[in-house]
Amino acid sequence: MKIGLMGFGKTGKAVASVILDNEGMSLEWVFRKRKVLDHRSVQEFLGVDSEESGLIYSSFTTSIEQILDEHPVDIIIDFSSNTVIYAYGKLAAKRKIKIISAVSHYEKEEKKLLKELAKQTTVFWSPNITLGVNYLLLASKFLKKIAPSVDIEIIEEHYKGKDGVSGTAVKIAEILNIDKTNISSVRAGGIVGKHEIIFGFPYQTVRLVHESISREAFGNGIVFVADNIADKKAGFYNFEDLLLPYFLK
Amino acid sequence: MKIGLMGFGKTGKAVASVILDNEGMSLEWVFRKRKVLDHRSVQEFLGVDSEESGLIYSSFTTSIEQILDEHPVDIIIDFSSNTVIYAYGKLAAKRKIKIISAVSHYEKEEKKLLKELAKQTTVFWSPNITLGVNYLLLASKFLKKIAPSVDIEIIEEHYKGKDGVSGTAVKIAEILNIDKTNISSVRAGGIVGKHEIIFGFPYQTVRLVHESISREAFGNGIVFVADNIADKKAGFYNFEDLLLPYFLK
Amino acid sequence: MKIGLMGFGKTGKAVASVILDNEGMSLEWVFRKRKVLDHRSVQEFLGVDSEESGLIYSSFTTSIEQILDEHPVDIIIDFSSNTVIYAYGKLAAKRKIKIISAVSHYEKEEKKLLKELAKQTTVFWSPNITLGVNYLLLASKFLKKIAPSVDIEIIEEHYKGKDGVSGTAVKIAEILNIDKTNISSVRAGGIVGKHEIIFGFPYQTVRLVHESISREAFGNGIVFVADNIADKKAGFYNFEDLLLPYFLK
Amino acid sequence: MKIGLMGFGKTGKAVASVILDNEGMSLEWVFRKRKVLDHRSVQEFLGVDSEESGLIYSSFTTSIEQILDEHPVDIIIDFSSNTVIYAYGKLAAKRKIKIISAVSHYEKEEKKLLKELAKQTTVFWSPNITLGVNYLLLASKFLKKIAPSVDIEIIEEHYKGKDGVSGTAVKIAEILNIDKTNISSVRAGGIVGKHEIIFGFPYQTVRLVHESISREAFGNGIVFVADNIADKKAGFYNFEDLLLPYFLK
Repeated sequence: MKIGLMGFGKTGKAVASVILDNEGMSLEWVFRKRKVLDHRSVQEFLGVDSEESGLIYSSFTTSIEQILDEHPVDIIIDFSSNTVIYAYGKLAAKRKIKIISAVSHYEKEEKKLLKELAKQTTVFWSPNITLGVNYLLLASKFLKKIAPSVDIEIIEEHYKGKDGVSGTAVKIAEILNIDKTNISSVRAGGIVGKHEIIFGFPYQTVRLVHESISREAFGNGIVFVADNIADKKAGFYNFEDLLLPYFLK
Repeated sequence: MKIGLMGFGKTGKAVASVILDNEGMSLEWVFRKRKVLDHRSVQEFLGVDSEESGLIYSSFTTSIEQILDEHPVDIIIDFSSNTVIYAYGKLAAKRKIKIISAVSHYEKEEKKLLKELAKQTTVFWSPNITLGVNYLLLASKFLKKIAPSVDIEIIEEHYKGKDGVSGTAVKIAEILNIDKTNISSVRAGGIVGKHEIIFGFPYQTVRLVHESISREAFGNGIVFVADNIADKKAGFYNFEDLLLPYFLK
Repeated sequence: MKIGLMGFGKTGKAVASVILDNEGMSLEWVFRKRKVLDHRSVQEFLGVDSEESGLIYSSFTTSIEQILDEHPVDIIIDFSSNTVIYAYGKLAAKRKIKIISAVSHYEKEEKKLLKELAKQTTVFWSPNITLGVNYLLLASKFLKKIAPSVDIEIIEEHYKGKDGVSGTAVKIAEILNIDKTNISSVRAGGIVGKHEIIFGFPYQTVRLVHESISREAFGNGIVFVADNIADKKAGFYNFEDLLLPYFLK
Repeated sequence: MKIGLMGFGKTGKAVASVILDNEGMSLEWVFRKRKVLDHRSVQEFLGVDSEESGLIYSSFTTSIEQILDEHPVDIIIDFSSNTVIYAYGKLAAKRKIKIISAVSHYEKEEKKLLKELAKQTTVFWSPNITLGVNYLLLASKFLKKIAPSVDIEIIEEHYKGKDGVSGTAVKIAEILNIDKTNISSVRAGGIVGKHEIIFGFPYQTVRLVHESISREAFGNGIVFVADNIADKKAGFYNFEDLLLPYFLK
């Protein structure tokens, strides 16, 4: 699979290094707004040992149309900001390039655009692209269905200084239909990220725990998504759409 | 639902007290081999405040046929030993009484008998009747399907003196198709029972944890099973059969 | 050691059964306000197999002076309410009977009385008598001394319905001089009691965890205290006084 | 404090970046066997924003004597291999330079040399320089003294592929005088490093847990040690010597 990557911030870099490491995927290019690193080799910059020839292109020197024509890809992976979809969305859909977006916060309009594009090509969007977290969302939803009256509490732990309640914890609470007051936020030292969902039964307790080790976890999520939308028709997909079929196997 | 209970050991007593506590269920009788407590009231013996009139009957003074005739029930719950099914199985099946068995170790012959009985009535069997543990089995099987190459390890903790590896841990290892050397057994103090399944990804870790608080957990499992087989036709069911439909809801 | 026990509520009963089980201790009597169970045998009532001859006395039929004269003891253990110390304190101190009090909430006046009695006999008081919790208090205080700028957070988990923040968690926060907003309280199902103190360093995390299995944990704390004040002179002691010397051994 | 660093492997680099970040310390030089990076600036190589002027020197181009003369330091920190102490030990001791060694495996002869050097200067050695792990060692030793008959078990978790039982877990077992069969080793995914010591009491459980987030944890340990030996006379010290005084404060 030939891959193009939108965005080259901290997470974008981590994702790029996982893609370079993956045998079934070839990173054709990275596109970013900033001018820094323009036309540098991705693998050289990241210090990854790979024969892939992907370059970094800046919006200052190159247009997206030009890249898509000269360096065709099967999938565009988007770790940039919410407006970038306007720049490449229609061009990609027209060329039947599949879109995987991990942008956290889309407004209504962008969500509408994604669904529009999904008429022409395969569009996947998930604000959290970690496999483990998405598994937790589904597995906890399932346990709540089995035991609707169980007490549910969420503990999320992150590094000191992280502002606000973790977006993932809020998402879990929404999906489980529990109040946000049931989320406990712990901020201490350098904890990368831990989410624990506690299901309290009268005589037993079930805990579903996800611990992040590093940002590269997003890269593994991307590989999973790319593998699982490879044979999907045009349409709009989220993580649950990809995970649920595994139950029926 | 009118319930008859086979067996009145430690777990049988815990289950009886949960049934007495449950509004939708009425404990009609307890049947046990031993002579002790014959014709005593269950609720009085357990010190439970309940209006149900169930008595304890001993095999020394009463036959199963007599009990089934004089005190008809909808469901027989079996927490006794593996041979007791021979005493009541056919009598129950003939009367279309549903059977829920939580006997841990059946031999081939008893399993064969259960399947025979399942042609006439609804038969459920699970060697571990805890809701949480059975959820863990299914949820972990599902995660392995999603991520077949993930590293899986099991830690089980129990009170000092518990012999051998926990049967539940062995069952989990079998279902996940991992080697028993991946089970770590911890024996310390008065730990009631903890099972932790660790899924190690390169950059993230998922942990599914079940902690037992007390034996009454079996009672809640029974209530769940009874509720879920209430409308099931004759046939042989296990926990997965009852849990899977919740995914599709 | 001959023991007299004040109070026979849930915790008092759990403590009595641990004392009956302990070879070095003999339970001479239980004194309680209520009339129920008057002059019944403790071991018989608790169903414990023991040769000790302790009886339950009610304040309705027997005076404390009478008991102390007819059934002399070395130690009085107090799991009753805060005013009972007025009834037995001076009588005990005069007879050089050691006092171990685990009453949670004393007012200033009772604390003053305890210190007064401590001039004549050995007086120990701790609002939480669990060995593990008291170890945690000391061990966490020590870690804070080593690393004064470490981030500290407390998570406490208890059964649904427990009101307010756990008193033990508040005590930990006070001793570590951290704000009560750093305590997260989780209420779910039948969790007996769990306290976790998280020390977040930039690149590592230390967690001190205490899990209660059952009320009998108080009994073991009492045995530890009784053993450790056996050779102590008159004076006022708390748990830290008994634990610290172990460091220097 | 002026610091010289022996060794520039993965851990050496992590330690260097913590020292560069620390206000009270100035990294004067790094000495390494290999020729690579000779005379490069440490902060430039590590991409750390610092005004310290430390260079990397290789044994191929520079002698230790020359470095010690031209770039005097207060402390030498040794993260190299076990034989390097022969190269700098006597030269350092003569100049009253303090030595902090974190080399994992010294043979008898090197330990003998360290004690010899300790007659002239302050020598500190600990095979594990993490603050949290050393705290755990001491805190668990203390709990065992309080409760000599408690059941102790150790669980250590590391990334898939780590060979053998963790050296830290073995050290804990030795200090607590428990059998190595009480260590459970879990190997899964990318777990950086977790050690859990379980103390099982009849009715309660205490868990002491250490989780490594990254290699930089060693750097913080070094800072702690350097701060705490600053005012120590000549002599041989280990981590317990530095930690114990905090109890008495």
